Amino acid sequence: MEVRLSALKDFPMVEPGDDLLTMILAAIRANGLFIRDQDVVVIAQKIVSKAENRYVILDSVTPSAAAITLAREVEKDPRFVELVLRESRHVVRKKPGVLIVEHRLGFVHANAGIDQSNIDHSQAERVLLLPENPDASAERLRQGIEQTLGARVAVIINDSMGRAWRNGTLGLAIGVAGMDAIDNKIGQHDLFGRELKVTAAAVADELAAGASVIMGQTTEKTPVVLVRGYPLPLKSSVESGVRNLLRDEKQDLFR
Amino acid sequence: MEVRLSALKDFPMVEPGDDLLTMILAAIRANGLFIRDQDVVVIAQKIVSKAENRYVILDSVTPSAAAITLAREVEKDPRFVELVLRESRHVVRKKPGVLIVEHRLGFVHANAGIDQSNIDHSQAERVLLLPENPDASAERLRQGIEQTLGARVAVIINDSMGRAWRNGTLGLAIGVAGMDAIDNKIGQHDLFGRELKVTAAAVADELAAGASVIMGQTTEKTPVVLVRGYPLPLKSSVESGVRNLLRDEKQDLFR
Repeated sequence: MEVRLSALKDFPMVEPGDDLLTMILAAIRANGLFIRDQDVVVIAQKIVSKAENRYVILDSVTPSAAAITLAREVEKDPRFVELVLRESRHVVRKKPGVLIVEHRLGFVHANAGIDQSNIDHSQAERVLLLPENPDASAERLRQGIEQTLGARVAVIINDSMGRAWRNGTLGLAIGVAGMDAIDNKIGQHDLFGRELKVTAAAVADELAAGASVIMGQTTEKTPVVLVRGYPLPLKSSVESGVRNLLRDEKQDLFR
Repeated sequence: MEVRLSALKDFPMVEPGDDLLTMILAAIRANGLFIRDQDVVVIAQKIVSKAENRYVILDSVTPSAAAITLAREVEKDPRFVELVLRESRHVVRKKPGVLIVEHRLGFVHANAGIDQSNIDHSQAERVLLLPENPDASAERLRQGIEQTLGARVAVIINDSMGRAWRNGTLGLAIGVAGMDAIDNKIGQHDLFGRELKVTAAAVADELAAGASVIMGQTTEKTPVVLVRGYPLPLKSSVESGVRNLLRDEKQDLFR
């Protein structure tokens, strides 16, 4: 069994209002590739956010008193902290240089996933928020691929995230369409007939992480990776979405 | 750019004392594959533990008073809890059904990574500990491949782990040889010349997760995955090892 991860080379810069579907299909052709049933298309959050114009000019932000106080504590720009708070349900951990929040969508994420790198600041200092609704963005692209090419694929939007206990970021799923994010083996049996109890693999995260390896953060020239060979059980999109990956706060021992 | 993950089909059952290097090289040939410079060989922890005979027969374990008390609290077998404690520095979180510890090697891991699935219990009830020193196991295999085939590869031993905040397990690295586990981009510049500040990608974990997708937990017939196409910067093995992935407890906000 073989899984192939193909990074689309020379992907053009994405600007607000760009039609990502058209750009992705063109890049696939330009790379001599094609899409077929059961492929998984992994897309970097950043280009989805850019196409959806999730930019905010920092000078347009008026920080609240709470943001100003918190900004002093974590040694960050109060306008930036204001945006983090607006994008969040609550602060999970903070210390100088570190602001980890529960994003309004349920991800635990440093700075609510708001990014300052790989952004053109030549006009004004601006930052880039996560997509408004990454599951919906993924589902739109999935449907667009199905309608244009007739191929039933899955789409994952990934983002580099820090984590507890271990150093380094990992590309993880923030939007999922066309597949179950978790491959739930509970109830199945192992090689020796013993029932598997807690084996639920976060396959969308594993695919997101694998694709992340070749996305290349510095140049950002390969923000789309085509995954072929993963035996994707194609489900109705009703069952897709990232929510199964997000542990409910009440169940979480680390928040 | 393309990364190919090839799972070695029909890998034989591994028994204590088996020579994993010989088995892996034979399986690569039997699968019509070959190894070359810069390949990454990802190996499931379970077959490394089995080859190293990290089995423990539960009846041979006498639980301490502390293990008996803790076992009652977490509703687990006191002999099993005794082994978890022996393999651990300390308990990180506990509740009925859940026992998360810091493993003696520094991983935060449920049950210290001790596993009861995919083990033949026909003789006596036994469990399987993590390898004694996964970095050393990975390095032995890496050196064996270099000496046998002349190929400079990296070796990652991976294991499925739970995590904070998100559901589902992820295949992550517990042993690394022949590569830097973290691709540290600090000091490099982004597309617009802004210095990348905190972009250190945990590439060994991303490769471990990607390979995990096709390893298949239920059948355990593909515990070895050959990764080709990742632009591996081949380093002296002195710089390899999993330790860069493990956040020091003092630096960790979630322990």
